[in-house]
Amino acid sequence: MTDKVGAPAARVVLQQCLQARLQVRPAEDQSEAQFVQIDRGMVIYICFFKGATDDILPKMVSSLLNLRLCESDSGKMASVLELPGSVLIVPQATLGGKAKGRAMQYHNNISKEDGLRLYGAFVSLCEKELTAASADVTVKHGTYGNRQVLKLDTNGPYTHLMDF
Amino acid sequence: MTDKVGAPAARVVLQQCLQARLQVRPAEDQSEAQFVQIDRGMVIYICFFKGATDDILPKMVSSLLNLRLCESDSGKMASVLELPGSVLIVPQATLGGKAKGRAMQYHNNISKEDGLRLYGAFVSLCEKELTAASADVTVKHGTYGNRQVLKLDTNGPYTHLMDF
Repeated sequence: MTDKVGAPAARVVLQQCLQARLQVRPAEDQSEAQFVQIDRGMVIYICFFKGATDDILPKMVSSLLNLRLCESDSGKMASVLELPGSVLIVPQATLGGKAKGRAMQYHNNISKEDGLRLYGAFVSLCEKELTAASADVTVKHGTYGNRQVLKLDTNGPYTHLMDF
Repeated sequence: MTDKVGAPAARVVLQQCLQARLQVRPAEDQSEAQFVQIDRGMVIYICFFKGATDDILPKMVSSLLNLRLCESDSGKMASVLELPGSVLIVPQATLGGKAKGRAMQYHNNISKEDGLRLYGAFVSLCEKELTAASADVTVKHGTYGNRQVLKLDTNGPYTHLMDF
């Protein structure tokens, strides 16, 4: 998929986890910080580029959930659907960065409005696919635009990159 | 840098951390597992491709350590050298993967022998640059070819991708 000609519409980094915890609301005067958490499964860091449309989402979600990226108990590679494992989705605009001198620029990133919409649709599609497959797993996700305070525990992250 | 024409010689994923711990020797009958750990700084996941040579290392290391990817206490972006922060280097061959059907293939990855040599040289160069800049920071690294059992605590990973 990284062979595709032209600029990608979305970039995803994947890491396997035993447990992952993400802040979804920072602490405020009257309230403590709020977190979501998954146990064994996959963290999906995602960034959309300018020109990305809803058309790409079904294929993206299908690829990400069906690719054999996870190690099963027997040591064989399995998809997160086969495992079955949970999924934590983390919006990560920094993935669209390009170095210019010593600074990073994000000129190709999608607008905040369009990004928020696509991110929401991507999360919904993941939820639909994953919860249809098993009742024991869950999809959690970060809040678009927030700081992604993340804690990750792995038995090997097996970091993968996918451009779509 | 991701604009470069042709296949990349190396791929790097970067994440900022408050603390990161990596297993460098698994537990055995007579011995407990061994770990290395850094506090605030940057995790560098690295993968070399076929054709990579030592020539690329000085530019790589200089870019990675001087790019303003870290958030300083004042909220401004700073390089890991400016922070100053520590560095944890994690060999991550999975970064070279391409999807074929539902499986990942790693045909473009460098041979284990050449990868091990380049990895060692990359680590040495990072150590030289970073420890020359500050006595308070450290470079730790994983063992090439091992399972990279990683625990990561972040205040936002700010995940970046760099191809060289």
